[in-house]
Amino acid sequence: MIEKLKGFRDFYPEDMEIREEIFSKMRKKAKVFGFRPIDYPSLELLEMFRIKSGDEILSQTYSFKDRGDREITLIPEATPSTVRMLVTRKDLPRPVRWYNIPKLWRYEEPQSGRTREHMQMNADIFGDDSLEADADTIGLACSILDSLGLRGSYEVRVNERGIMEHILKSIGSKDIKNDLATIDRFHKMKREDIVERLVSSGIEEQKAILLCEFVEKSYTIEEAEQIIVQKFNPGNITDLMGRIKETFRILKENGFENIVYNPSTVRGLAYYTGIVFEGFDREGKFRSIFGGGRYNNLSALFSGMEIPAVGFGMGDAVLENLMREKGLWKNTENERRYYIIGLDEKGREESVRVAFRLRQRDVQCVAHSGGKNLSNALKNATKLNFTHTILIGKNEMDNGKYTVRDLASGDQKSMEMDQIG
Amino acid sequence: MIEKLKGFRDFYPEDMEIREEIFSKMRKKAKVFGFRPIDYPSLELLEMFRIKSGDEILSQTYSFKDRGDREITLIPEATPSTVRMLVTRKDLPRPVRWYNIPKLWRYEEPQSGRTREHMQMNADIFGDDSLEADADTIGLACSILDSLGLRGSYEVRVNERGIMEHILKSIGSKDIKNDLATIDRFHKMKREDIVERLVSSGIEEQKAILLCEFVEKSYTIEEAEQIIVQKFNPGNITDLMGRIKETFRILKENGFENIVYNPSTVRGLAYYTGIVFEGFDREGKFRSIFGGGRYNNLSALFSGMEIPAVGFGMGDAVLENLMREKGLWKNTENERRYYIIGLDEKGREESVRVAFRLRQRDVQCVAHSGGKNLSNALKNATKLNFTHTILIGKNEMDNGKYTVRDLASGDQKSMEMDQIG
Repeated sequence: MIEKLKGFRDFYPEDMEIREEIFSKMRKKAKVFGFRPIDYPSLELLEMFRIKSGDEILSQTYSFKDRGDREITLIPEATPSTVRMLVTRKDLPRPVRWYNIPKLWRYEEPQSGRTREHMQMNADIFGDDSLEADADTIGLACSILDSLGLRGSYEVRVNERGIMEHILKSIGSKDIKNDLATIDRFHKMKREDIVERLVSSGIEEQKAILLCEFVEKSYTIEEAEQIIVQKFNPGNITDLMGRIKETFRILKENGFENIVYNPSTVRGLAYYTGIVFEGFDREGKFRSIFGGGRYNNLSALFSGMEIPAVGFGMGDAVLENLMREKGLWKNTENERRYYIIGLDEKGREESVRVAFRLRQRDVQCVAHSGGKNLSNALKNATKLNFTHTILIGKNEMDNGKYTVRDLASGDQKSMEMDQIG
Repeated sequence: MIEKLKGFRDFYPEDMEIREEIFSKMRKKAKVFGFRPIDYPSLELLEMFRIKSGDEILSQTYSFKDRGDREITLIPEATPSTVRMLVTRKDLPRPVRWYNIPKLWRYEEPQSGRTREHMQMNADIFGDDSLEADADTIGLACSILDSLGLRGSYEVRVNERGIMEHILKSIGSKDIKNDLATIDRFHKMKREDIVERLVSSGIEEQKAILLCEFVEKSYTIEEAEQIIVQKFNPGNITDLMGRIKETFRILKENGFENIVYNPSTVRGLAYYTGIVFEGFDREGKFRSIFGGGRYNNLSALFSGMEIPAVGFGMGDAVLENLMREKGLWKNTENERRYYIIGLDEKGREESVRVAFRLRQRDVQCVAHSGGKNLSNALKNATKLNFTHTILIGKNEMDNGKYTVRDLASGDQKSMEMDQIG
C-alpha cells in the first residue's frame, strides 16, 4: 500500500469544494482591486532564493541537482519568481498589479497551520510607491477575508520599518538590522533575553526596557504617534508618520476598522523597506493569516532596476484553521445536483438522454447506472451528495413530465425537462 | 540576471487571463457532468509510478532523494495519486467522479506542445463499469472543447482494446502486449518495420499486411464492425462490439458527431482494459488534445481492491496551440476595468474613496496614483488594459456625478457612483 508523504495533504471533494470556492473568491477580489493573474514555474534556480534570503532559507527547501547539474528548487515563496518575471519584461508598462495562487514547498517539521506543501495567494503592486498602493494591498487582503465571512474575526497589525529604524537609531542602536530581528522574535523570547540582546547592540538598558514596553502592545495610530514622539525622540519622522497615518485614514474611512499599529510587527525578512503588516485572528489562537509590506529594493538586487513594490501572501492552512473554528468551513454555493434514475429499461435509456440535455444548459447531473434496484439507486443519490432525484418510469415517459424530488425536504414535483435546473 | 529554467513557462496576464478562463470552464463542465474536485501533493514516492508504469517512466521524472533518504518525485501524471486517494478511503461511497487540474512535470526535451511543466485536467469515474460512464467521460472532454469554441475543430478517435486483442489473437499473435505497442507506434514507423514486428510475434505476413490496411484509417463504427468480422474472424466479440456501438450511439444521439473508430489508437500504456480514446485537431497538425480510456486493474495493483475506472487527461499546451491557430486565444469575458483619475487634489482624494466604494459592489477599478499629469494618467489607463476612465474634478465633486469614458468607443457619460458598474 503506497502512502502519501508526511507533511503533505490530500483533499477530498468535501474539502476541495470549499477550497475551490475560497480560491475563486480570492481571484474575484484580486480582479476587483485591479490585479491581474500571472503564473511561473514551480521549479527555479536555487540561486534566486539565495540572492533574496541568504543561505538560511536553503536548509528549508526541496532542492536538488537536475540532470544538467543545475541546483534547482521547488519554490518556497512566490515573490522572487514574481520579481524575476517583472524585470525580465522591461517593456511592461507600470504600475502593474499581479496576483497568483501557487503551490509552495518548505522542508520543515509539519505543525498546525504549517505544512510542507501549501497554496498561497500572492498579490503585488510594482512601480507605484504611493500610500494608496499600500492601502489597496491591505484593503485587498481584508476584502478577501471579509468575503469569506471573517469580518470581525481578525485584525491587521501594521508597522513602519522606517519609523522603527528611527527609534532604534535614536536610542543608540549600532546594529539596526539585528535589533529588528530581535523585535521580530519579541513574543517568542523572554523579556530579559530581548533586553540583553538590545543592550548588546549598543542600546542603554533603560531605553531597551522602554522599547520593550512600547513593543509589547498594539495601539491606534494616534496613540502610537504620541508615544513615539514623547518617549523616543526619533528625529524627523514627519513624512513617514504622515504617510502611515494617511494609510490608516483611508482604510478606516473605507470600512476597515480592524487595523492597529503594532510595533513588534517587523517581519523577519530583511528586505522590507516601509510599511509592514500581518493579519491575525482576533483571539490570537493561530499563526498569521497573511503578511506583507513594502519592499522597494528587491528588483534592484535581481536586475539593477529600481522598482518600488508592495504586496502580501495569504496561505491556505491558517485560513482553514480559522474558518473551521468560526464554523465557516462549508460550501456556500448551494448548487443543485440531480441524480436521474430510470425505473425501467426505457426509463434508463431516457435518463442518459435527459442527463446530456440538462448538461447543455449547465445543469449538474448524473444518470444512475448501477442496476435496477430502486432503493439502492435512491441510497446512492443521498450518499453521493446529490440534492435532487429525477425519476423516469413509464408514466413519466408517457406524460413527458419527470418526477423531481428535493432530497433534503422530500418535496416532489412533476416537471417538464425544460423547467428543471 | 536570474532566468527561468529551460522547458518551463512564465505566464503574463495577457495569457494567464485566458488560461484562468479555460480552467474555469473545465471546472464548470466537470461539475455539470457530476465530477467533484480533489487535489493531491505534487511530490509522491517514486515507487508509486514504478508500480504503475515500470522503470521506463523513471528516466523522465524530476526525482530525487529527500533528507529522509526517500526516493520522491514531482508527479509526472495524475492517475496514480488519484487512485492512491481512492483506495486510501475504503469508506467512500462509489461510484465517484473526480477531477483535478494539477501541474505535472516531465524531464524530457521540450518541443511544441510538450513542456517540462504543464497543467492537465484529469477526470475519472471509479466504481462504475458501465458504457454510460464511458460515454460521460468522452462527453465531458468534448463538452469542454465545445465550450472553448472548438466544436468542429477536433475529432475523437475511439478504439476498444478488447476487440484489438481478439483480432490479434485470431490472426496468430503470440505476444499481444507487444503487438499493441507496435500498433501504438503505427504512424511513427515505416510500414515494412511494422509488418516485420508483427510477423516476429507469430502473425502470418499476409494477415499482418491486412491488419496494417485496417489500422491505417478511421471508420464509422458500422464500417469497423463489418471489416473486423469479415476480414479477421475475431471470435465472439458480440458483447464488446455491442457495448462500443451503444457508446457511439449515445454520443451521437447527444450531439457529439465527431467520433470515429480508429484501430491504431491503443494508447501506449499497458494498463488500459477497454475503451481507449484520443482527441485530435481535425487537420492533424498537433499532438493529441486529450486521451484516456478504461483501466479496471490499476486499483488492484495499488491495493488489492478491484475498482473499475475510466478517465482522461487534457493538457494545457496542445490546447493552447490549437486555440491560437483557430483565433480563439483571447479573453471572452469582456469585463469592465475602470481607471479613476482625480483632476485636482480633492479629486484625487475622492478617487480613492470611489475606488473602495465601487469595489464593494465588485466593480473592477484602480485609482490613478502616479502624479498630476492628466495626459500621462490617460495613457496609463490605455496601456494598463483598463476599459474605462472615471474623471473626477471640481465639477464632478460639485454635481456628485462623474465623467465615465469608454476607452474603446470614446463615448463619455456623466454618471452617479451607484450607476457605474
